[in-house]
Amino acid sequence: MPTIDVIKAVTSGPNDVSLLKQLADRGHSLLDVIALVAKTEGNGCVNDFSRTLAAVAWGQVLPESAITIFSGGTEGVLSPHAALLVATNDGPGPTGALVAAVGRTAPIPSEQVGRYPQLAAVASVVEELCAELQLTRDDVHLVLVKCPLLTSEQVHHCLAAEIEPATRDTYTSMALSRGASALGVALGLGECGEDDAVATLRGERRTWSSVASVSSGAELQDCKVLVVGASATATGPLRAVHGVMRDALDSETVLDLLGQVAAADGQIVQVLAKAEADPSGQIRGRRHTMLTDSDLSATRHARAAVGGLLAGLVGDSAIYVSGGAEHQGPPGGGPVTIVYRQAGAV
Amino acid sequence: MPTIDVIKAVTSGPNDVSLLKQLADRGHSLLDVIALVAKTEGNGCVNDFSRTLAAVAWGQVLPESAITIFSGGTEGVLSPHAALLVATNDGPGPTGALVAAVGRTAPIPSEQVGRYPQLAAVASVVEELCAELQLTRDDVHLVLVKCPLLTSEQVHHCLAAEIEPATRDTYTSMALSRGASALGVALGLGECGEDDAVATLRGERRTWSSVASVSSGAELQDCKVLVVGASATATGPLRAVHGVMRDALDSETVLDLLGQVAAADGQIVQVLAKAEADPSGQIRGRRHTMLTDSDLSATRHARAAVGGLLAGLVGDSAIYVSGGAEHQGPPGGGPVTIVYRQAGAV
Amino acid sequence: MPTIDVIKAVTSGPNDVSLLKQLADRGHSLLDVIALVAKTEGNGCVNDFSRTLAAVAWGQVLPESAITIFSGGTEGVLSPHAALLVATNDGPGPTGALVAAVGRTAPIPSEQVGRYPQLAAVASVVEELCAELQLTRDDVHLVLVKCPLLTSEQVHHCLAAEIEPATRDTYTSMALSRGASALGVALGLGECGEDDAVATLRGERRTWSSVASVSSGAELQDCKVLVVGASATATGPLRAVHGVMRDALDSETVLDLLGQVAAADGQIVQVLAKAEADPSGQIRGRRHTMLTDSDLSATRHARAAVGGLLAGLVGDSAIYVSGGAEHQGPPGGGPVTIVYRQAGAV
Amino acid sequence: MPTIDVIKAVTSGPNDVSLLKQLADRGHSLLDVIALVAKTEGNGCVNDFSRTLAAVAWGQVLPESAITIFSGGTEGVLSPHAALLVATNDGPGPTGALVAAVGRTAPIPSEQVGRYPQLAAVASVVEELCAELQLTRDDVHLVLVKCPLLTSEQVHHCLAAEIEPATRDTYTSMALSRGASALGVALGLGECGEDDAVATLRGERRTWSSVASVSSGAELQDCKVLVVGASATATGPLRAVHGVMRDALDSETVLDLLGQVAAADGQIVQVLAKAEADPSGQIRGRRHTMLTDSDLSATRHARAAVGGLLAGLVGDSAIYVSGGAEHQGPPGGGPVTIVYRQAGAV
Repeated sequence: MPTIDVIKAVTSGPNDVSLLKQLADRGHSLLDVIALVAKTEGNGCVNDFSRTLAAVAWGQVLPESAITIFSGGTEGVLSPHAALLVATNDGPGPTGALVAAVGRTAPIPSEQVGRYPQLAAVASVVEELCAELQLTRDDVHLVLVKCPLLTSEQVHHCLAAEIEPATRDTYTSMALSRGASALGVALGLGECGEDDAVATLRGERRTWSSVASVSSGAELQDCKVLVVGASATATGPLRAVHGVMRDALDSETVLDLLGQVAAADGQIVQVLAKAEADPSGQIRGRRHTMLTDSDLSATRHARAAVGGLLAGLVGDSAIYVSGGAEHQGPPGGGPVTIVYRQAGAV
Repeated sequence: MPTIDVIKAVTSGPNDVSLLKQLADRGHSLLDVIALVAKTEGNGCVNDFSRTLAAVAWGQVLPESAITIFSGGTEGVLSPHAALLVATNDGPGPTGALVAAVGRTAPIPSEQVGRYPQLAAVASVVEELCAELQLTRDDVHLVLVKCPLLTSEQVHHCLAAEIEPATRDTYTSMALSRGASALGVALGLGECGEDDAVATLRGERRTWSSVASVSSGAELQDCKVLVVGASATATGPLRAVHGVMRDALDSETVLDLLGQVAAADGQIVQVLAKAEADPSGQIRGRRHTMLTDSDLSATRHARAAVGGLLAGLVGDSAIYVSGGAEHQGPPGGGPVTIVYRQAGAV
Repeated sequence: MPTIDVIKAVTSGPNDVSLLKQLADRGHSLLDVIALVAKTEGNGCVNDFSRTLAAVAWGQVLPESAITIFSGGTEGVLSPHAALLVATNDGPGPTGALVAAVGRTAPIPSEQVGRYPQLAAVASVVEELCAELQLTRDDVHLVLVKCPLLTSEQVHHCLAAEIEPATRDTYTSMALSRGASALGVALGLGECGEDDAVATLRGERRTWSSVASVSSGAELQDCKVLVVGASATATGPLRAVHGVMRDALDSETVLDLLGQVAAADGQIVQVLAKAEADPSGQIRGRRHTMLTDSDLSATRHARAAVGGLLAGLVGDSAIYVSGGAEHQGPPGGGPVTIVYRQAGAV
Repeated sequence: MPTIDVIKAVTSGPNDVSLLKQLADRGHSLLDVIALVAKTEGNGCVNDFSRTLAAVAWGQVLPESAITIFSGGTEGVLSPHAALLVATNDGPGPTGALVAAVGRTAPIPSEQVGRYPQLAAVASVVEELCAELQLTRDDVHLVLVKCPLLTSEQVHHCLAAEIEPATRDTYTSMALSRGASALGVALGLGECGEDDAVATLRGERRTWSSVASVSSGAELQDCKVLVVGASATATGPLRAVHGVMRDALDSETVLDLLGQVAAADGQIVQVLAKAEADPSGQIRGRRHTMLTDSDLSATRHARAAVGGLLAGLVGDSAIYVSGGAEHQGPPGGGPVTIVYRQAGAV
């Protein structure tokens, strides 16, 4: 059972892979690396080359078995950073430690991006990983997914083949891809049934996952999936709590989670959260302007705001806040997971 | 002694003056209006026409004696809103109520923007207003200033007259103008001496005001000043607390202020805060990217992040968060004032 | 028959109405004003308050009978300016002079924006204006339309009433509204039949107008229409030529039109053109990046580029280039009209 | 004498190096490559990771001896592309063919960026390259320079060492670095004397180069220099003409150059031009808004506009237009070089 540890550091740029040096210091080898999860400093949108640059740089140094998830956008106080998830020896101690596993779907053809086949493919990988880790739905603290988007070129190819893609708008394709992946997580975990997932994809219902965190990008064609949960049998250094922010102002949920960590005398290692502009154009009845700002994408607005709240509450700006929370938590809200080192763990 | 009340509402656009209708409902007339302080939804930078639009709309309905302060930029969760400061009858009750007065400097010629004459003019108005309100430095909770910037046209006119303006860069002129005004507040209140103010303006020292909140814009040529403080003799509905965030993550200071309001059983009416990208490029030793983002101005980043933190903690997104805190609090931090209605006040 | 003249000047800001002073100098009164057509310096997108500011300022000084059309966005070399179309005395001289008339539709309810009722309403006004001016389809050089968009608030109201608007995306609503209006022009002029217009609106065909120039904005709820054509009977100072740029590189068409003006010894008064990012993501087989740039709207890109070409060819940067040419010329191209003062006219 | 040829292709992304495949098809080996000159699709400003991504990708496939110059920003119609300059066999034929050579300075320490040592270092390399190519000042058609900028981190390091950098503003550092390099070119070529160069660097005079084209970026620390000229002795396929656009509307200069190429029956291979927002805020007496637009950098505006003009005139959007023309041509204008294949050359 792969008990995990996390090694995190601020980066000096998207192609800064110096974090690798800490592996040996911490008694790990390259082959222990399960995943790299990082925030890079691009716009987090379609033309975010900071993600591609990071993918190229890390792709050259990490083993094939590891996956990389780069979420662009460090608006406001957020600090670009990278976090290695490594398999670690589970010594003696209480069970319930964090475990993790990774997988990927087949490449998603352009015409399937944002549609049911993507949803189904993600669901299938999530199911496999949960089985592999022997996690039930309630054990899972986080399912991170990185998935593709549609570029102008891909839209063009679809149309040339007389296939209408899910959208012709490149920025909108990011949202549709995230949404399909998130529903795949919900379905794979059993948070909803097939009917619900499909109806929500069609816009007819509103199902959502409480642990999915999905990011889309131009730097990949398949979907990469990372499942993190608390194992009933594993021992190890890390624990997690998670909750769902009901809107972007929901400090109560965050303070409650922080209270749980404090009560366990835990030391926070990483915070992972989703943020989005409430699609109603309002938060608690008051108008926001994220959806009418043609100069600045709504996802950038949302990351900056929720990043500001979380970083301020945690006292750490090197946290993972990702924008665009379609079917990840309720509209305008999003899941948040806090990973901590339990008292006494090194 | 003009005891004040505040009437606040979300606006539907920069030229929404419907808040005025609430005046009568609350037993006030137009002539009671001392100031209008509003957030509008532009970029808060040089070409923010939302401020000018608001200035035109409100200028047509408010009395000459009132001043208007429009701060652009409602990034992230921030909600565009307007708040009227009105003179109200001070009934019986404890003293220590909030009072306010407004004034303006003469127009600041382009060549003086960001320079000593602007600093001195603001200082002089601040001094007068404190005297008028019989406030000592320790009584003052907030000094809001709205001041001019340099447009391309003004830079061009300076150069044509063979005068080098404080800067040729229009966005930088906003920072220099804010800085000079803030030092004017510090000097006018006695937070620093003339030497300190002048040396700081020259970049040789680092004095700052703990209550100044300055915003610059193209919609005016003079500096408008609003002083708000707790009067030793006035009774009335409002009170305030203020503090200084030491950086953009400083939730402790905010939580402490909120605790003071809660202890007094107060009901929060408005929060006014300054935010800025730490000029060192780091927050608590971690790199931020606000100063290297050529797509998005640093002031927009900062408003979004600090706005996200404050709105989340207060549970209200219609708050006044303004970007660019030169000499307003320490580098990377900024003053924050919370106005509240005291228990039992209507 | 209202023969027209055009009085044009660079503005110092969106609310600069000083052009009005030139009316008297040129022997005109306010009541001669048929329309004001201006470029303002906002982003030309959803949150362009420069348009609203201009609308407020000009609305206070122009007669009710005149319409105003503000197109936001003066990217690159483009210069913010305003042009008054005034009715003038047609003295003796050759016929074929420019005439113009204006009209407006009823307010377009939010759920009709970008849909058939808007198309039909515009078509109807265009027909009426052509009849009024006794212009046939071949006489018309330009039909300018200004039409509404959908804000977050309007989308929200639709959804609250369980009506799905044409789109939930505010920026996309601008394109749909422009497209419906342009098809209305094509239908009203007889450039296409009802079937073609409807099928194109549904995305099934590709009809377009060769003289429509449509701009959308948040500053109005109805559609304003200006028809300009060469009258077989009117005499007067102005003439026009028009053509259709087949793509954004099509200098040949422009040079040909300029050649026609030069051959007539005409003096160019104004150039009005539409520009758009080719929806295929390519221009003449080479990739462009306007549709994958999440930092900068495609309409801003297009205006800057086509504005640069036209301004350079004409030697005047105070020209009317508007972004988003849905059904206005072929995909990636757009109509261009050059108004000139004929030789000998004052 | 390295007679050169140019192989150019549109790229599918910053890390598309497929152009290399054409080398063999054209009878060249990797070692023939002298330089790669490319436009990538980032913002062309401080945080343009498209340039870094391209530098990483090409750095892995090109020989050490070749230099790479990546200019970010393909606003408007501009198409991302790459052009290889390769040494080719000079067969029989007329002399006057294009030759080229490349060099680099030592790394420029942060405190020297934008200052005299950078200027002198560039001048020195330019002199050496001209000597190597046996070119006099009048033979030179183009000197391309790529030079560093200052990041937040570098500014921070300077200040920590109590050294004031040329500017603390990262975007401004790009302009200062370009300016120093351009003056280095002017000095190295003898377009001006040392006194003039130094006085201009200090802002006291206005010297400029008529062939310099400089771009700055975060992806390098030294200055890379490419000199291209017509050799009195070399034979080969390419020729060039160059001129100086006096402002961004100057189509006359471009049309004149195009006329020269047409007269020689040449086939245009590449166009290289500099563009900038006129620092006066006006073009030919009419206001532009590039310097007051806080949403969009002036260099992006300028590239879009001049790129639109040049691409339209040439009928090719895969051309090299670079923004920020400090001391490269007169204020508001910039040098333009057209490389063409002479009639009969393959």
